[in-house]
Amino acid sequence: MAPTTTTTAETASMIESISPFTGESTGAVAEATATTQVDAIARAAAAAAPAFDALGRGRRAALLRRLADFLEESRDEIISTAHAETAIPEARLGGELNRTAYQARFFADVITDGAYLEATVDHAGDTPMGPGPDLRSMLVPTGPVAVFGASNFPLAFSVPGGDTVSALAAGNPVVIKAHSSHPRLSQLTFGILNRAAAEIGAPKGTVGIVYGTAAGAALVAHPAITAVGFTGSLSGGQALLDIIAERENPIPFFGELSSINPLVVSPGAAASRGTEIAAGLVGSFTTSGGQLCTKPGVVYVPVGADGDNLVAEAARQVEDTDSSVLLNQRIAGEYADYAAASASWTDVSVVAEGTADPDGTGVAARLLETSAKSINGRELSECFGPTTIIIRYGDSELDAALETLPGSLTATVHSEPGEEGFAAHVFDQLRPKAGRLLHNGYPTGVLVSWAQTHGGPWPSTNTQYTSVGAHAIKRWLRPVTWQDVPEALLPAELREGRAAIPRRIDGALITPAVG
Amino acid sequence: MAPTTTTTAETASMIESISPFTGESTGAVAEATATTQVDAIARAAAAAAPAFDALGRGRRAALLRRLADFLEESRDEIISTAHAETAIPEARLGGELNRTAYQARFFADVITDGAYLEATVDHAGDTPMGPGPDLRSMLVPTGPVAVFGASNFPLAFSVPGGDTVSALAAGNPVVIKAHSSHPRLSQLTFGILNRAAAEIGAPKGTVGIVYGTAAGAALVAHPAITAVGFTGSLSGGQALLDIIAERENPIPFFGELSSINPLVVSPGAAASRGTEIAAGLVGSFTTSGGQLCTKPGVVYVPVGADGDNLVAEAARQVEDTDSSVLLNQRIAGEYADYAAASASWTDVSVVAEGTADPDGTGVAARLLETSAKSINGRELSECFGPTTIIIRYGDSELDAALETLPGSLTATVHSEPGEEGFAAHVFDQLRPKAGRLLHNGYPTGVLVSWAQTHGGPWPSTNTQYTSVGAHAIKRWLRPVTWQDVPEALLPAELREGRAAIPRRIDGALITPAVG
Repeated sequence: MAPTTTTTAETASMIESISPFTGESTGAVAEATATTQVDAIARAAAAAAPAFDALGRGRRAALLRRLADFLEESRDEIISTAHAETAIPEARLGGELNRTAYQARFFADVITDGAYLEATVDHAGDTPMGPGPDLRSMLVPTGPVAVFGASNFPLAFSVPGGDTVSALAAGNPVVIKAHSSHPRLSQLTFGILNRAAAEIGAPKGTVGIVYGTAAGAALVAHPAITAVGFTGSLSGGQALLDIIAERENPIPFFGELSSINPLVVSPGAAASRGTEIAAGLVGSFTTSGGQLCTKPGVVYVPVGADGDNLVAEAARQVEDTDSSVLLNQRIAGEYADYAAASASWTDVSVVAEGTADPDGTGVAARLLETSAKSINGRELSECFGPTTIIIRYGDSELDAALETLPGSLTATVHSEPGEEGFAAHVFDQLRPKAGRLLHNGYPTGVLVSWAQTHGGPWPSTNTQYTSVGAHAIKRWLRPVTWQDVPEALLPAELREGRAAIPRRIDGALITPAVG
Repeated sequence: MAPTTTTTAETASMIESISPFTGESTGAVAEATATTQVDAIARAAAAAAPAFDALGRGRRAALLRRLADFLEESRDEIISTAHAETAIPEARLGGELNRTAYQARFFADVITDGAYLEATVDHAGDTPMGPGPDLRSMLVPTGPVAVFGASNFPLAFSVPGGDTVSALAAGNPVVIKAHSSHPRLSQLTFGILNRAAAEIGAPKGTVGIVYGTAAGAALVAHPAITAVGFTGSLSGGQALLDIIAERENPIPFFGELSSINPLVVSPGAAASRGTEIAAGLVGSFTTSGGQLCTKPGVVYVPVGADGDNLVAEAARQVEDTDSSVLLNQRIAGEYADYAAASASWTDVSVVAEGTADPDGTGVAARLLETSAKSINGRELSECFGPTTIIIRYGDSELDAALETLPGSLTATVHSEPGEEGFAAHVFDQLRPKAGRLLHNGYPTGVLVSWAQTHGGPWPSTNTQYTSVGAHAIKRWLRPVTWQDVPEALLPAELREGRAAIPRRIDGALITPAVG
């Protein structure tokens, strides 16, 4: 979500930690970082860049493993601090901590493997265009990276999260903008990150943190920053893109922005597994208070009795769903606004509402329904919180309904054996609109792995890169070719002789000998 | 260079071919493409996209090889048409045709090899975060691509050029904006491209062409277009970026924009090879009328007798250099403007001028000189045409002088054995500012190969991608992950069993068995 100002009128320069349970400050965490201080931090990052790159992949891998160990050692303090600031259940925070530690170790593996460097050697020789020079290329770090923490993943997409560890793995210093929803956790986890960097001898300035909206803006505008990682709202992303447009040298912005994650239930799936799908769907759109980027926000269910049963079962489950305390007051307010607006939409009905918190802190889950004939676009925008809309489709209405979908991080099809034609057709329609295609599953839950993609066409992201999985490291790298450069001046990975990493030599991909 | 309007007041809807030798029209080539027609062409490309992708890598490779054959079969007609419209010497056009054909065949090899797909399989199994699903990923085509031809490479960076063949290789339909400097050649080579597409059975709409500035703008704004390839001026690129900013869904813009390509001569190199370097340098900055993106535009030469000798020899060579007919009247006009402006710069002297054409058609080569103490930024912007500026540096002045350099496509160091410390230090300074680092060579001449990089930090490009070499294909691809999708619904490259392409399976990179 977009950074918001959490300072109060009386203490304009202090960053307060606001409880999502009460909406009240639990105390000041840090001073808002002054612009001069942002400048010093960004300069320190730039000064650290060459030495940090020169540490080599082995030392950087050690940093990431040390970070994972330290996070696990501080598990209890991290979880309790995160819970107090985000209201995310402790069990999920425990899982998120596991994932965050795993992710740090995973990027250590990725850089140890070395294929990500795309090391390539073309020896000098004759070519159809005449004699060719010696050309050797690999990816190099871009330089200091700005990372904006996300409200909804205070660990895995925040200070010690995927953007940070992939940028460090690539060899770049990182300056983090602490999210206003969890400044205390940001401070705690930054201390851990800083300790890991110090322990492996990273130069001073390798990691930095800034607090406050103005500091975030100054960071993105700073000449030393070479790229920005952001997971948040479309409007927050747009504000940072506007700052980048004003820079003398535009820099890449890797934004994960807004996604509605369509899920299509085939007629056969509705008939065979309607009850099971209803349970899976409600679990997926209400987990973590419906505040996951991959929440299924629009669900296509056939008209007719099987679809009716699925919807009725989902409605029963929603009615049994406890209220959720959302991440912060702004998100809770926007959820209330969406509920009020959608209740007034013609042709959209509220099928079910869950338990509302009697004291008004928690919000109720809501299930909406409309028909494929009635959709007009307003149903197809993301709402953070435990709500989704079911779109009932009749024979031959699905194609046109799916055509209006914007880009998403994920798209899901539920179908049964014998419906391969249906599934293939729907996947063909959805593939241009999503970065991950699921069958008979639910899109929440993003495994960190080699094959993972967390990205997709606009507005889910504004890039062709993924922000989760091994290839997320590519965001912080750019290619360089060395032409006829003497061996001693080449990076170690490009010198003659056997290498411990995969390389393409004169056109042939060579993997390191095993054993 | 930026597209310019070549229509005249009398025939506003016709695209004329203008001779660079006379500045006069040699006749109308085509009607300027109306906006409605651009819409039809872009829609046809979108409609063709799934079937073109489904042709598979083998058929697309056949298309590219056929294109190369057809280009070579029409060699004489292509060269004479190109020469009449661009004034580029026929010998260089012959070399460019060789390169263009080679490039098409090279991308056929790249997609046959298949590593570019980054095919990855993570089987379902236990993970530290619990049971993981089956995840399979690879890169898929983004959809219809708009390609803007360049004035200075009417073949290799135009209709049948690198952007077109890499986008087709990736599986995308391509719509080309013909460059106003060579509409007749664009029409001729588009006919050849279209014939190659038809011969391998590509769906109608796979390739398209539009003429005129308004048509180019409409193309970039069209919802069906998913990415833009552009080689030209900073201002032309900015105009297209402004159009993209107005789109409902922003799309990636891959612009190769402006580069000054610094070349540093060490004290030892000036002493040992001053005469040789002078010859190489003058050859490099005057070849093709100095209208190459990789022209060395700023040259650092030590103060003192060795540097003086180098400059004196370069001056002699420039004086012996024949005049060049530039690509079009706009470029010639801008060259004259630069000459007039630079003649008035304080602390900058015109060291030598070559032969000027008596009838005023050809322009004279010019060698400028200033001192490291005097540079103030105006010397560090690109000028198309046969000119370069030498910056004389004294002891300890080089670091500060190099610090002011903007990003470039290339950076070159000339040094001698025993000067490794100097070379390493200068390369360390230049690496963050360039995409290709050369030693003891000249940056003009960009070999198409696996290890080539033609890209660099802003303003040389606005991306982290290369536009030449194997990785240029990545611009037109994005990752997709399939989660728990049945075998029959997966792309062939991601199914179980042996594959003919490199894949990463459960973390291990597996190359196809040889033989």
